[in-house]
Parts: sequence; C-alpha cells; structure tokens
Amino acid sequence: MTGRADGADLRPDAASPVVILVRPQLGDNIGAVARAMANGGLFYLRLVAPRDGWPQSSAWRTASGAQRLLESASLHDSVADAVADLHHVFATCPRPRHVIKPVLTARGGAAELRAICARGLRCGLLFGPERAGLDNDDMAQADALIRYPVNPAFSSLNLAQAVMVMAYEWAASADDTPPRMLMTNETGVATKAALENFLTHLVDELDACGFLRNLPKRPGMVRNLRHFFQRGEVTEQELRTLHGVVTELAIGRHARGRKEEAEVP
Amino acid sequence: MTGRADGADLRPDAASPVVILVRPQLGDNIGAVARAMANGGLFYLRLVAPRDGWPQSSAWRTASGAQRLLESASLHDSVADAVADLHHVFATCPRPRHVIKPVLTARGGAAELRAICARGLRCGLLFGPERAGLDNDDMAQADALIRYPVNPAFSSLNLAQAVMVMAYEWAASADDTPPRMLMTNETGVATKAALENFLTHLVDELDACGFLRNLPKRPGMVRNLRHFFQRGEVTEQELRTLHGVVTELAIGRHARGRKEEAEVP
Repeated sequence: MTGRADGADLRPDAASPVVILVRPQLGDNIGAVARAMANGGLFYLRLVAPRDGWPQSSAWRTASGAQRLLESASLHDSVADAVADLHHVFATCPRPRHVIKPVLTARGGAAELRAICARGLRCGLLFGPERAGLDNDDMAQADALIRYPVNPAFSSLNLAQAVMVMAYEWAASADDTPPRMLMTNETGVATKAALENFLTHLVDELDACGFLRNLPKRPGMVRNLRHFFQRGEVTEQELRTLHGVVTELAIGRHARGRKEEAEVP
Repeated sequence: MTGRADGADLRPDAASPVVILVRPQLGDNIGAVARAMANGGLFYLRLVAPRDGWPQSSAWRTASGAQRLLESASLHDSVADAVADLHHVFATCPRPRHVIKPVLTARGGAAELRAICARGLRCGLLFGPERAGLDNDDMAQADALIRYPVNPAFSSLNLAQAVMVMAYEWAASADDTPPRMLMTNETGVATKAALENFLTHLVDELDACGFLRNLPKRPGMVRNLRHFFQRGEVTEQELRTLHGVVTELAIGRHARGRKEEAEVP
C-alpha cells in the first residue's frame, strides 16, 4: 500500500500524457521533474535539446527513486520532432502574451487531458526552459496553453514545481476521495444510539455526584454537554474509553465519599 | 501584472495560513519551500528545530526571490510552541496509520483553510522532516490530517514539492478563472453573423472557381466546411485574415484564368 521507494513499482500507464522538457538547463531539475512525474503517476519523459547534453548524472542524483523514467526518456532535436506522434499538445506558460490561443487552468487542463487520453489519443505537456520559458514558436506547436492560478506578484515556478502541479492535478483528476473523512482504523463511527448511551451514563453519574443539583439549570447544562459531544464524529472505541473515564472518575468519587462518611465522627 | 522577480512585491496576507516545517533537514529545501509559498501567496514561515540551525545560507540561495519569507521566519523549539497562538492546525501526512483523525484531501484542506481564515481564525500547516515525516506526537497536535491523492506506488514527495501542492491549492481555492477560455488580446471572439459572412464569401468564390460544380454533392461539401470553421472559437482578427486569404487566392486564380484566356490563340 505504501509503495516501494526504489521506484520498482513504477509502471507506465499507456493512457497518460507525455512530459516534454524544452531546452532544460539543469540536470538537477530534470531528475526532480522525474520524481514529481512519478508522484503524479506520469511516466513518459521527452527532452528537447537539453543544454548540458544527455544523460546527466546530476539528474540521476535528484530523481530519488524515479530513475526508471530517466532511463526511458527520449532525446529530440526540436519540439516538432518531440510532438510528431501526439494528437494533442498543451503548453504550460505563466505569462502568455500576444498569442491568440485557448488558455486552460491547471485543473481544467488536467480534466481535458484525462478526457482526451481516455479516447485513446496521445497527449503531451510542454514545459519551457528554467529562465525564459517557452518561446513563441514553441507555443505555436500547442493546441492550448495552461496557466496556473498563482500569486501574480511571484508567478515564476521552479521547473520541477511546475511539473509537480500538473502531475498532482493529473492524479487528482482521477481521485474520488471524499474531501473530509474520519480515519477510524479498526473501530467505526459510533451511532447516535451509542452516543446517547454514553450521555445517559455521564448524566446519571453527574446526577449521582451532585454536579447537576441546580435543577433550573440542569436541562441547559445537559444540553451543552450534548452539544459538545455531538460536535464531531466519535468512534465506538472512543465511546468505550469515555465510558471507562466516567466510571473510573465516579468510582474515585464514591470511594472518597465513603471515606469521608467513614471519617465523620 | 507579471510581478517582480526579486520578491519586493511579496506582502503578507494576514488571513493566510502559517507554514510550519518540523525538524527540516536541508537548508536547500527550506529556501525552495519559501519560493513555493510565495508562488501560492503564503508568507508566514515557522521552523521547529531545523537540523542544521538557523539561518542557513543554503536556504537564501534556493529561495529565488522569496528571501523576505526567510527573513520573517520564526524559530521554535517544539511543535507545541510553534502552534500555541493558532486556532486550527492541519498536518500533511502521506501515510497516516494507527491514528483516529479526520483526513482531508489537499483540495478539501485548502477549502477548509480558506473558510476558517475568513472567520479571522489563524491556521497552521505542519510539514514533517524530509525522510521520516511527522511522528505520532506531531500529528496529535493537529485537528486534521491532509493526504494528497498521489501515486500509491511512489507517494513520497520532496518537502518543497509537498509545500508547493498546498500553496497551489491555497491559491486555486480563491481562483475563479474559467477552466477554458480563448485569449484574444486586442481582438474579440467573432459573432455567428461575422462567421456566416466569411462562409458566404468563401462559398461564393468556390462557386466562381468551380470547386462546388458537382451540384448533388454541393450541400454536403458546404456543410462540411461549415462544420470545420465552427469547431472552435474564431476571432474577428482571424476572420479578417481568412477573408484576405480567400480574396488573394481567388485573385491569383482570376489572374491565371485571365492569363489563360489571353493565351488562347
């Protein structure tokens, strides 16, 4: 379930997009890109004219278990060559100007990629070089641009971070985890009847010890306790613990009460 | 609009969550975290017992313009100290086990953070050390855990990548950009009437040159051309260009036609 850190579990999903790094400068970044791709379930990497050649040992150092992606990566002279066998190409571009082109959000882009790949068509994602980004000729190779909704005062992402966002959105686009759930392990969420049973136990003991002796205030105090214990989900195991806490505290009080009675002269 | 790369535009949004790095190991990663935070519009950074002390010059090297966040970062001995003034704490945790805790997706977590911060409450996001992640005592300080929907066969994210995903989701949670739009610059999307006007021009010229001379097939051919030009949005500028293309091609044909006529003996 937790996966193997050495990347031996990394297998290509034939219906996943290709990541194309255009003129990447730093081997460190290429390795970090491979790791980010693997995190998101992407596998296919293509390199267009990497500045320092290919392969580069620095990429292997930063891939942290995603070396299989580097070993399978292909090398290309031009963007046109790298996209030749693809049907759809999206270009990530933080600040597109002077082009007339569809622009997608990262999430919108991931949803379209998912839909297009599901039709058996092959998609590619273009990422530009570290400093300059994609040039106008690169963007002209793309069907659409993808622009992330980031801080306009600080919109330049590190190359591997830019790939991470799309890899994450690709994975998220197939995820149906509820946005919030209670992790309960071996126990389960308690029913209302089980919660009521505990509240009855608690109130009985509070009546017995005199905590609720102010009868006009008693209904409100009981209601406040009920509000508190209703605030979040409670598990069956936690209710058993709470029953035990109340019982033990009450035993102590009873024992002390008996001791005090015994001490009465 | 494009922001300044030196980070001088970075200003804290008082209603944004605090990022708390618990026992971070590498200064490089702390700097990369600051950059990722700035990308997503986060500002407040707290460090709990960084392994190599604080400040570290390596962090300043990788912050790439987000140095203001490092200069404002605070140093803490314990998680308890780092979260003492906060109202809600979420802990990122790739593989939570043996804890009973609400678990949120990254997107669900960002939506809750946005809602809680909007109430004037202060939120924190805990990130564990590079290798081990948060321990059980760290997680016990949190209201809920956040688990990303990543590749189960390769779920270990670099620390700065993990922060990038939440910073991105924080920014995305306030973004209302349509998932797809056509960027049109100085021109605009053409109306159906403008498109019809072009199609009339095109069909008139195709009638004139004889391309549509097969009358039984003519309606289907015209319909196919209409389907093609209707496939995506077309801008007014593009229609002007297309009018020009048809006119020029037709002039060439007329001229050749006239030339051929003139050559008839």
